[in-house]
Amino acid sequence: MEMLLRRGFLWQSFEIYRGMAGFFDYAPLGNNLRRKIENIWREFFVIDERVAEIDTPLIGIEEVFIASGHATSFVDTAIECQNCHRVYRADHYIKEKLNLEVESSIDAIKEVLEVYDLKCECGGKFGEPFPMNLMFSTKIGAGKGKNAYLRPETAQGIFIAFKRLSNYFREKLPFGVAQIGRAFRNEISPRQGVIRLREFNQAELEFFVHPAEKTHPNFREVASDVLTLVDKFDKTHRITLEEAVKKGIIANEVLAYFIGKTRRFLLAIGIKDEKLRFRQHKDDEKAHYATDCWDAEALTSYGWIEIVGIADRTDYDLSRHAKFSGEDLSIFVPYPKPISVKKKRAIPKMNALGPAFKSKAKKIAEALEKVEVSGEEVEVEVDGEKIRLTRDFFEIKEVEEEIAGERVVPHVIEPSFGLDRITFTVLEHSFDKDVVEGEERKVLRLKRRLAPVEVAVLPLLSREPFTTRAMEIVGMLKKAGFYTEYDDSGSIGRRYRRYDEIGTPFCITIDHQTFEDGTVTIRDRDTTGQVRVKISDLTWILRELLMSEKNIEGFGEKFR
Amino acid sequence: MEMLLRRGFLWQSFEIYRGMAGFFDYAPLGNNLRRKIENIWREFFVIDERVAEIDTPLIGIEEVFIASGHATSFVDTAIECQNCHRVYRADHYIKEKLNLEVESSIDAIKEVLEVYDLKCECGGKFGEPFPMNLMFSTKIGAGKGKNAYLRPETAQGIFIAFKRLSNYFREKLPFGVAQIGRAFRNEISPRQGVIRLREFNQAELEFFVHPAEKTHPNFREVASDVLTLVDKFDKTHRITLEEAVKKGIIANEVLAYFIGKTRRFLLAIGIKDEKLRFRQHKDDEKAHYATDCWDAEALTSYGWIEIVGIADRTDYDLSRHAKFSGEDLSIFVPYPKPISVKKKRAIPKMNALGPAFKSKAKKIAEALEKVEVSGEEVEVEVDGEKIRLTRDFFEIKEVEEEIAGERVVPHVIEPSFGLDRITFTVLEHSFDKDVVEGEERKVLRLKRRLAPVEVAVLPLLSREPFTTRAMEIVGMLKKAGFYTEYDDSGSIGRRYRRYDEIGTPFCITIDHQTFEDGTVTIRDRDTTGQVRVKISDLTWILRELLMSEKNIEGFGEKFR
Repeated sequence: MEMLLRRGFLWQSFEIYRGMAGFFDYAPLGNNLRRKIENIWREFFVIDERVAEIDTPLIGIEEVFIASGHATSFVDTAIECQNCHRVYRADHYIKEKLNLEVESSIDAIKEVLEVYDLKCECGGKFGEPFPMNLMFSTKIGAGKGKNAYLRPETAQGIFIAFKRLSNYFREKLPFGVAQIGRAFRNEISPRQGVIRLREFNQAELEFFVHPAEKTHPNFREVASDVLTLVDKFDKTHRITLEEAVKKGIIANEVLAYFIGKTRRFLLAIGIKDEKLRFRQHKDDEKAHYATDCWDAEALTSYGWIEIVGIADRTDYDLSRHAKFSGEDLSIFVPYPKPISVKKKRAIPKMNALGPAFKSKAKKIAEALEKVEVSGEEVEVEVDGEKIRLTRDFFEIKEVEEEIAGERVVPHVIEPSFGLDRITFTVLEHSFDKDVVEGEERKVLRLKRRLAPVEVAVLPLLSREPFTTRAMEIVGMLKKAGFYTEYDDSGSIGRRYRRYDEIGTPFCITIDHQTFEDGTVTIRDRDTTGQVRVKISDLTWILRELLMSEKNIEGFGEKFR
Repeated sequence: MEMLLRRGFLWQSFEIYRGMAGFFDYAPLGNNLRRKIENIWREFFVIDERVAEIDTPLIGIEEVFIASGHATSFVDTAIECQNCHRVYRADHYIKEKLNLEVESSIDAIKEVLEVYDLKCECGGKFGEPFPMNLMFSTKIGAGKGKNAYLRPETAQGIFIAFKRLSNYFREKLPFGVAQIGRAFRNEISPRQGVIRLREFNQAELEFFVHPAEKTHPNFREVASDVLTLVDKFDKTHRITLEEAVKKGIIANEVLAYFIGKTRRFLLAIGIKDEKLRFRQHKDDEKAHYATDCWDAEALTSYGWIEIVGIADRTDYDLSRHAKFSGEDLSIFVPYPKPISVKKKRAIPKMNALGPAFKSKAKKIAEALEKVEVSGEEVEVEVDGEKIRLTRDFFEIKEVEEEIAGERVVPHVIEPSFGLDRITFTVLEHSFDKDVVEGEERKVLRLKRRLAPVEVAVLPLLSREPFTTRAMEIVGMLKKAGFYTEYDDSGSIGRRYRRYDEIGTPFCITIDHQTFEDGTVTIRDRDTTGQVRVKISDLTWILRELLMSEKNIEGFGEKFR
């Protein structure tokens, strides 16, 4: 953490105004790292799938969150000291003081406060526990304004655009919609540094499937991957995804596919397999919208922390928004072949209807033709009036009708990634120490593609002509799009260490020989080996090295 | 606009809940386009400069905006109808109804309402004009909470992190800090579609310079570029940047450099030079923090609209935050050589001090030695007590002292980009019609690198084995990281048109010959020409074509 602050990965927000818990800044290196993780996420979960990415507002009108249930269910129970007026999140305070896991309901909290006579840290008594909604609220427009909230998840922006989206995908399931961006959670009293944030970054994928076909076309790609699964009974399995589905540990193939793909993504960005597990939510732990949910958990200095949640949200959200908006959010799914169905239809008897209903007879006959008959009488509605008709007014005919398909409200499988925790975990899992030339070295073994500074250019000596030549190479590499730094301060060894510490994979050194034959050396962070290459080859060699994990020794003459 | 909605560039937000003015969704194609524009911005304004990018919270505590002036100065004047209670932004309503440009002050608005007896559209009378702050407000935490706002610009997050940032750059000017992200403006009654938004995307660069050295190391790169400048007296110039600085039309070289670089960026993403101008703010038009400001304006269907603002904010923000936070936000700038300064110093006379001040004499002597003497008497402070000393108690010695440098509060030049308007302008300037095979064709001539769908894979016939072979190629291209679509619906000509309309630069067609020799055709959107290439060469050829504007004819045998 000290290194993260000092070297420019993460900073406390509003530091000059004494800070504010639950907010932090992505400093230059942390920002680059997170952006690069996002890009790799996009490759795995957008480009490589039948998935489109959208970007919807962070402010949402209250209708959205009434329908989604967040206005009522997205709450924690708070307790306020009547003496010092400090407010705590009740379950966290109880866990901290009594080491007791307690459900976050008003009644449960009240009972614990009474039974244990729990007091505030100042010695004061707590008042009645009260619910606190975790959404930040605001108003849109002038005057009284319209009630609105900052989104607690990116997902709702996808659900309410579902009609447009299913049209974009020509109503063909399965398809997915992704969103990367900020979400907000007005935590009562966040204390865990970068782990519990009021403003955070999510990457969410909503994958819409036919409720009766929870399969994924690419499941074979991951089926034989072996994972660590902890099921809802706390039993640990080392098992392939295929077996896990077969044994019913994971409810369906789509969930299993995204668990597998999530693991592959996490490994690709440098999270350690042995510090990664997938844990199933217990029945009392699930969000209000989920039926089955698996968390990817990583082992960090905070213990095991949730970094991804993979939930089967069923049709909960689409059905709620359909109900509250009055819009049809189903998809028409054609049957493989149209189905024949026998139906009873009414044939109007005009000679009976005419005398009985006069001018209305024609409209009644038209309504009758549309009705399916089930008993001896039929009710039709004409100009708002309901009219019952006995068999005197119609004949019954049995017909065969073809039905081409049915309307279906898709289910949704949601892998939801906490990018801040993932970034932090990548940093922790990449941090390493070794011994180089008899001295301990701190080195950040980031995957090359993730390095915030991709290449450092170092003049061997901090004077002409070394410095000017180095600056020219910096200019060339910047124009070619590399995150490049120039550094001439301190001994060359000290400078190498400086870039090892922030995970820069390659250092270029301009030395005496540069002026003889136009070559420089490239040093590899991990092996500390060096090769000598022509300046004119630098751009393509660096591009090749940064996109792969190739050994530098294939690219030039070994140096030293 | 119809095409943007229909094909999935932009959608109205909250559509199923009857929408909300000032918000829209980036649909899949619009999202990809904007992200790609952001990446090119990063190449121009971050990677290619001595600039670091950070990412700070969207929620800001009120201290920040009290210091920045937004809490008091970021207001519009509103008027409310006393009959229908509709609220309007006063200057816009007056412009619309009376075609009158009016200053947005309470007094000016009041006068116009009276003189012209202006009524609401419903015929009602307006009440007193009132100021409305344009920041969205919220509360952080439980209970009463802490006052906070959604940021009205990304810039403040940079200014308040200035201490950390100048340390990151080792206190060496000039350096820049960039931020890309959301900002918010609670417009009173936005009406202009995507042009006036309540939630929008900014890319801002704060470039910190020595106040006495407003030069840029790379100015030569753009100095001879010829631009259209409209100065604050409404005079238009076609002139090089070098001349514009020389003649004093542009105040300094840093401003001129970023005007030039902004133009180069805008051309690189496809904005037309002949529909681009730089207009200087008039003296009454500038933001509360700016001394000189130039807008890049683009000609669109809305007329000339501001898409970039390039302002000299001087030391306004840093000085305000220093004052309000009590932190020193200056940088120590060493002189090229230390400067010698003559000073008069006091030499204590102990034989006079001792008898007069007893036990305090020693402390007084120590204090005296630190004082610079200007007159015949000196005042020192010892243990909180102020003591005046006459020449009886000290001698005067003249000494030479060296000063290594001075503390300076940097000035900041800020190019601030409105990404939503830029994205919209790119779409408008790329939209084209031509005639292909006797039929009118709509084509979006996006730069290849910006295309939201990079390649479409089309089986000539919508049946086996064409479809399976096409899907295999789709899988291969997706794994290689291309935004790829598969399409087998409709005639091949109609499908080409579909991808021309959304700016897809290349279509791959699987035809009969594919099964004979493993080749496919690549079709170029702009020329509609085709070449035949091996499937195994597709990946590198597409990568090469998408990164450049090379002609496809160099990559394969001409087809047809």
